Amino acid sequence: MPENMLQGLPAPITSPPSREELAGRLTNVQARMHSAELDFYVSFNPVNIYYLTNFANYVHERPFLLVIPCEGVPVMVAPLLETSHVRARARCDLEYATYFEYPAPLGHNWFDVYGALFKDASSRVGVESALPIGIAERTPGTRVVVDIIDDVRLVKTPYEIGRNVHACQIVTLGHEKLLEICRPGVAEGAIYSSVSQLMMGRILADIPDANTMVCSAKGTVWPPSISHDPHRIPTLSMPMEQGGPHVSIVVAQVDGYGVELERTFFLGTVPDWAHEPFNAMLEARALAFELARPGAVLSEIDFAVRELIARHGYGDRILHRTGHGMGITGHEAPYVALGDDRELEPAMLISIEPGIYFPDQGGFRHSDTVLITDSACVSLTEAPDQLEDLTLPA
Amino acid sequence: MPENMLQGLPAPITSPPSREELAGRLTNVQARMHSAELDFYVSFNPVNIYYLTNFANYVHERPFLLVIPCEGVPVMVAPLLETSHVRARARCDLEYATYFEYPAPLGHNWFDVYGALFKDASSRVGVESALPIGIAERTPGTRVVVDIIDDVRLVKTPYEIGRNVHACQIVTLGHEKLLEICRPGVAEGAIYSSVSQLMMGRILADIPDANTMVCSAKGTVWPPSISHDPHRIPTLSMPMEQGGPHVSIVVAQVDGYGVELERTFFLGTVPDWAHEPFNAMLEARALAFELARPGAVLSEIDFAVRELIARHGYGDRILHRTGHGMGITGHEAPYVALGDDRELEPAMLISIEPGIYFPDQGGFRHSDTVLITDSACVSLTEAPDQLEDLTLPA
Repeated sequence: MPENMLQGLPAPITSPPSREELAGRLTNVQARMHSAELDFYVSFNPVNIYYLTNFANYVHERPFLLVIPCEGVPVMVAPLLETSHVRARARCDLEYATYFEYPAPLGHNWFDVYGALFKDASSRVGVESALPIGIAERTPGTRVVVDIIDDVRLVKTPYEIGRNVHACQIVTLGHEKLLEICRPGVAEGAIYSSVSQLMMGRILADIPDANTMVCSAKGTVWPPSISHDPHRIPTLSMPMEQGGPHVSIVVAQVDGYGVELERTFFLGTVPDWAHEPFNAMLEARALAFELARPGAVLSEIDFAVRELIARHGYGDRILHRTGHGMGITGHEAPYVALGDDRELEPAMLISIEPGIYFPDQGGFRHSDTVLITDSACVSLTEAPDQLEDLTLPA
Repeated sequence: MPENMLQGLPAPITSPPSREELAGRLTNVQARMHSAELDFYVSFNPVNIYYLTNFANYVHERPFLLVIPCEGVPVMVAPLLETSHVRARARCDLEYATYFEYPAPLGHNWFDVYGALFKDASSRVGVESALPIGIAERTPGTRVVVDIIDDVRLVKTPYEIGRNVHACQIVTLGHEKLLEICRPGVAEGAIYSSVSQLMMGRILADIPDANTMVCSAKGTVWPPSISHDPHRIPTLSMPMEQGGPHVSIVVAQVDGYGVELERTFFLGTVPDWAHEPFNAMLEARALAFELARPGAVLSEIDFAVRELIARHGYGDRILHRTGHGMGITGHEAPYVALGDDRELEPAMLISIEPGIYFPDQGGFRHSDTVLITDSACVSLTEAPDQLEDLTLPA
């Protein structure tokens, strides 16, 4: 089981990243570029650009491209319209390559400005696997598809951990509220509105100048009619029901740092059939917490958890892996999944959320945001996990 | 100037698309595939998948891929976790190719399932320019980068126009509220919260089972301190100021259909220097409305508008094109921009929003959502546009 959240956790951080923090991230990227013998690395993924610069953007037709040389200062390719926006948000050294507009007259398009940044056609240029092919085709030199920034993001810095600790306080608060107001007949929309507003209010109290482009806070419940279908988004008119299983999903991106907290719960009564899968889910979760420590192979954790669930007779009721990484986003590498044969390391951040699902009957899943420590793991989120505490008044 | 919005507009629609509507969109795509001699077309862009299926997803590490044959039913490549979600939302015929998880054991990954769908290695396969290179590299056959679905989306169906007419009613309502409550000292967050809630409430009253994954409604104001920087997102603690120019941005995606409405306005007093650029912006806007009709070349409209602004002495104060297309998203082709040499056609939907910006002093821009009719254009959004009506009490 998780260590107590109140002991020995890193302190929450709400301040923006220092120049040194961002310079350290760039240094890690450039070290990997050196190992891979790359002259340049191109980042298009807005999450990776945010990670290195503190500038957040939505992807639309005007591309932002961060061109990182193997040494020295990255160049931001951005439209004229956005240059002052980038300057206002970036907290690192940047050079700028500004293009006219999208589209633009001949010779003034993004690809004209972008292509001119690569010294010669023999450069080795690393690109993300997420790079759109329309941009890849405009990239000079020898292209190497490699997710260097994503790899650097796997292990969190102390600053990042402090931000995620704070974000987990927000979802912990939101989840308390959710359990307090979730009663039969209450509409999804009322829960969503109340929980989300509480969390956004706290975010803005703690970080008055939070960048709303990387802020969101959602508190939702999958009532029993859809809790078997973990990614079907509830409609806001859905009422909560007597009994269960209900599954809550409380997620937030708090000024750029994403976390989650989820619980399986019941209103008034627990159907007889639900006890056994609930307990199986609890056991699977406890096993995952026990196994999640430095040196553990991710696929082996998922294998062991699936085996345990299968021994309970629910092997064909599994829809997804045991967990996934978090950090800036609420969903990123590494994956606690068959097929991810990497090892856990200290300062990785993952969800632990094995689930069991019965079509048209309901689903069973708790999820926490969990930090890998030097020797074990600790949950940064906190909510009741036992059936008696999760059987609420009806 | 725009025709009166109350006369002769298509009726608003709030119902989901019929199977016939979606079948017609697919027919248009397959006709273009035939012309381009493609055996398959692959769609990854969630907007395009939504357009053809009514299923909306967020892009994360588990890819959804719609593989469209030149004849017959498309195949949705989706993770096991999401198959029932897709089935619950899709409103068209689909076949399914389900993969285990991301990542997955050898032989069970998305690319194993995906690659097997292409009959032989000699297929000609069309892909979107937005397709990630990591997916493009796993696509068999001869790849042709061509944005067929984006092209089909350029001209709206009567159903789509009805949805956008409804969405424009929502932002028109939100903008009325914004002008009513925007006074010096009021915080951005109070305006945002009030306007957004009003619009979301109306959306849910009109469409109780709206898909929240494609619903958003935002009402914001760029106060004079940042109105020169049109894409710098305000922080929620920013207070409104005496004078101006303030610039409002009210945008919504209403159960899948995106529109916008923006105004330049003043609180209490209009600074002397602001009259001339405000009038220049109004003239530029009137010219764009006059030129926006079937057969007009988009780049020529932008050229004429830029020329007019330059004649006023503000040629170096332009940061962006005259407008952009809308439809499902609030930002898509075609572009009213130098470099887009396509012609406007009836049933296209664009913004008209020429802007003039003075660093550290402020910006001037109105934006409306405008439908191209058989002979002219008509604004689907409605708000005051004259200085006297946009000088509010302080």
